[in-house]
Amino acid sequence: MYEFDTIAAISTPMGEGAIAIVRLSGEEAFRIIDEIFVTPSSKKMKDVASHTIHYGHIVDPKTDKIIEEVMVSVMRGPKTFTREDVVEINCHGGLVSVNKLLQLVMSRGARLAEPGEFTKRAFLNGRIDLSQAEAVMDLIRAKTDRAMNVALGQMEGRLSKLIQKLRQEILETLAHVEVNIDYPEYDDVEEMTHQLLLEKSTYVKEELEKLLQTSQQGKILREGLSTVIIGRPNVGKSSLLNSLVHENKAIVTDIPGTTRDVIEEYVSVRGVPLRLVDTAGIRETEDIVERIGVERSREVLKKADLILLVLNNNDDLTMEDKQLFEAVKGMDVIVIVNKTDLPTKIDIGQVKELANHHTVISTSLKEEQGIDELEEAISSMFFQGDLEAGDMTYVSNSRHIGLITQAQQALEDAIVGMESGVPIDIVQIDLTRTWEILGEIIGDAVHESLIDQLFSQFCLGK
Amino acid sequence: MYEFDTIAAISTPMGEGAIAIVRLSGEEAFRIIDEIFVTPSSKKMKDVASHTIHYGHIVDPKTDKIIEEVMVSVMRGPKTFTREDVVEINCHGGLVSVNKLLQLVMSRGARLAEPGEFTKRAFLNGRIDLSQAEAVMDLIRAKTDRAMNVALGQMEGRLSKLIQKLRQEILETLAHVEVNIDYPEYDDVEEMTHQLLLEKSTYVKEELEKLLQTSQQGKILREGLSTVIIGRPNVGKSSLLNSLVHENKAIVTDIPGTTRDVIEEYVSVRGVPLRLVDTAGIRETEDIVERIGVERSREVLKKADLILLVLNNNDDLTMEDKQLFEAVKGMDVIVIVNKTDLPTKIDIGQVKELANHHTVISTSLKEEQGIDELEEAISSMFFQGDLEAGDMTYVSNSRHIGLITQAQQALEDAIVGMESGVPIDIVQIDLTRTWEILGEIIGDAVHESLIDQLFSQFCLGK
Repeated sequence: MYEFDTIAAISTPMGEGAIAIVRLSGEEAFRIIDEIFVTPSSKKMKDVASHTIHYGHIVDPKTDKIIEEVMVSVMRGPKTFTREDVVEINCHGGLVSVNKLLQLVMSRGARLAEPGEFTKRAFLNGRIDLSQAEAVMDLIRAKTDRAMNVALGQMEGRLSKLIQKLRQEILETLAHVEVNIDYPEYDDVEEMTHQLLLEKSTYVKEELEKLLQTSQQGKILREGLSTVIIGRPNVGKSSLLNSLVHENKAIVTDIPGTTRDVIEEYVSVRGVPLRLVDTAGIRETEDIVERIGVERSREVLKKADLILLVLNNNDDLTMEDKQLFEAVKGMDVIVIVNKTDLPTKIDIGQVKELANHHTVISTSLKEEQGIDELEEAISSMFFQGDLEAGDMTYVSNSRHIGLITQAQQALEDAIVGMESGVPIDIVQIDLTRTWEILGEIIGDAVHESLIDQLFSQFCLGK
Repeated sequence: MYEFDTIAAISTPMGEGAIAIVRLSGEEAFRIIDEIFVTPSSKKMKDVASHTIHYGHIVDPKTDKIIEEVMVSVMRGPKTFTREDVVEINCHGGLVSVNKLLQLVMSRGARLAEPGEFTKRAFLNGRIDLSQAEAVMDLIRAKTDRAMNVALGQMEGRLSKLIQKLRQEILETLAHVEVNIDYPEYDDVEEMTHQLLLEKSTYVKEELEKLLQTSQQGKILREGLSTVIIGRPNVGKSSLLNSLVHENKAIVTDIPGTTRDVIEEYVSVRGVPLRLVDTAGIRETEDIVERIGVERSREVLKKADLILLVLNNNDDLTMEDKQLFEAVKGMDVIVIVNKTDLPTKIDIGQVKELANHHTVISTSLKEEQGIDELEEAISSMFFQGDLEAGDMTYVSNSRHIGLITQAQQALEDAIVGMESGVPIDIVQIDLTRTWEILGEIIGDAVHESLIDQLFSQFCLGK
């Protein structure tokens, strides 16, 4: 186990709540809590049994003033989240008092934890591997049940096990080749080795391909489908937004800490998390069309995974409509012809022509018609067949996807090499590289700066 | 102890965080957790020692699917927050998983707790009295150290003890009078009784008066000083706002759940919480003057406790400036003549005349001049002398202030009655009423609907 200083952080979300928690981890944790925590029976936390809870008051030893009424949880390493001694101070969830508590703990020698530092210690102390640590954050950020299941599976080590299995396969093959090379007295050694290498490389490559096939869906589940609603004023963009938000539970609105500039709203459409971008513009002013020429709006469009283009059934196609079709060329678009409760004036034939191969859905959002069809179209656009594959291993993390793609490429190189007759020791190098690349997924011999960078994306107190 | 059903709620603030807690309270709490919680050693929570923590997984018994990796805290009544059996499920702080966890707990028979229902049970089960319960919420909402200290004192029973002492005084006096009436054979009974009643009533009334004297300050500490910055465009309203926010730590910005219409920002000026109202308007457009004629702005002004009127030292007084002086007549105003780094063009004599008895401060916010003086003026406007009276009992809650005022009035009636010679049994009625009114502060015989209404203002999960 590594030797670390003692860290502290507020581990509950900022805001008024019933409970707030200040968490401490490290070898000074018990010393610190015993300096500031007074129980009715004057118990000392260094003496109590592990995994027990104690009632009392936090008292500033300098002023003898009571800071808070608290419950203190004591967990002795190594059976803790970080494998170190952990103390959790559970207090009434006021912003001022929890901040004061944190300051007091720091004045007694704890250091403010960096984002993700508790989980980083769990990784460095060997309790979890890197992909599991990353899954902890994915779990926290999950926007739908399905995304949660993917993260949970990864956290429980599903991806790690698969990667480890493939690495083991490579390692055994390499060992086998080594033995064959060491005993070249047998006749058919070269051919056998060649055969084995090709077989195993192909097998691992196929397994990685299968994994990569889950990545597009995995990534969507993890990050949400960036969705933009566009259309002229008064075609029903707000209604569409409201339908999506109300029919499906809005998951997060106006996340504190994100830029206020572009407001995002998450909805779960049949388990697919839609990240509705720039909803502020739609809600407030219906003015996204006016801003379509603006650089920023173009960028929003460019980054979108899905465009919902809304037209008015009760009006002729205008020049503006056509410009919108032009602006979203080559993107994933669903065309929505709204207001079917009113007489049709739009030229549906022309709409279909402009839509090209994109799906066209007719709706009357006012009368709640066509919403099911729209949701079906969104879901089937990105997910084929039944998604509720609870036991499937998804790759969802860009870092993992990148590494698997690299590993696959290295194997491809090896296979092509073998087929064109390059020497076995060159092939060995490719295989060893594959083994190393896969190791980075689970954090085997990764660079310290990468680890720092990964954990810095975590939230505070985790 | 009352018999209640089992309630559950998410007790941490909504949002992504490192830890989220689902809390259960009631006699079914252990039964429910044992149906959904699986530990590595198959322990049952009904069997483990109280105040212990256990690692394991939440599993949906219907699907056998893992929902979350958790730590479960088990606390057996009556030594708990509610005096009932309490279970806290401590999970990775994801919104989706914590919601799923709550749903699962509810599907096994727990009812979603109403806001404040845990604290309400603590009150109904006699662990704390009503004023202590109210202080729990004050503590959570406290915006400054001083406000926190007031709440903490009240939570620890400081106000309760004082009220109980006064009630005891009244009760003893009434008992004494009763005895005197029962033994009228003594000569001077009537005069003695009269004397005693007058003395005691006066004493209690004076004590209540002292308490009421703390109420204005207590209320400000509790609720913050609603502060509005006004002035023409470009006089430095944004700079003033930024100075106040940056010099003093901003406590809360853009509180989720509050109306987005009027954005508030809290800053602590020498321990006095300023609630800066409508800062959005100032920050974004400097347009509050243009909206001064609008009904809403008038209302904001009317409700303000403090107006900061900003003028431009480098410009003549305009018609608009004078209209602003007119609009804030009769309010608590501090006049700020800003931009003293530029040549003086304003007629200071006229400013002082318009300001009348209000304080006028000269500042150069750009060069950080005069801010100390402004803060001093704000602080001394509402607090005389040293505020750091840690041992003082403040009344801060409007309900308490109202009841104490009523009690004082009832005593006043009694005293006036005695002086004009009304019969002792009428005086007894007034005293009994005083005793009853004071009882309402600590929740002695208060109406159920009042209790419901009080606790409904709490946050969820408390």
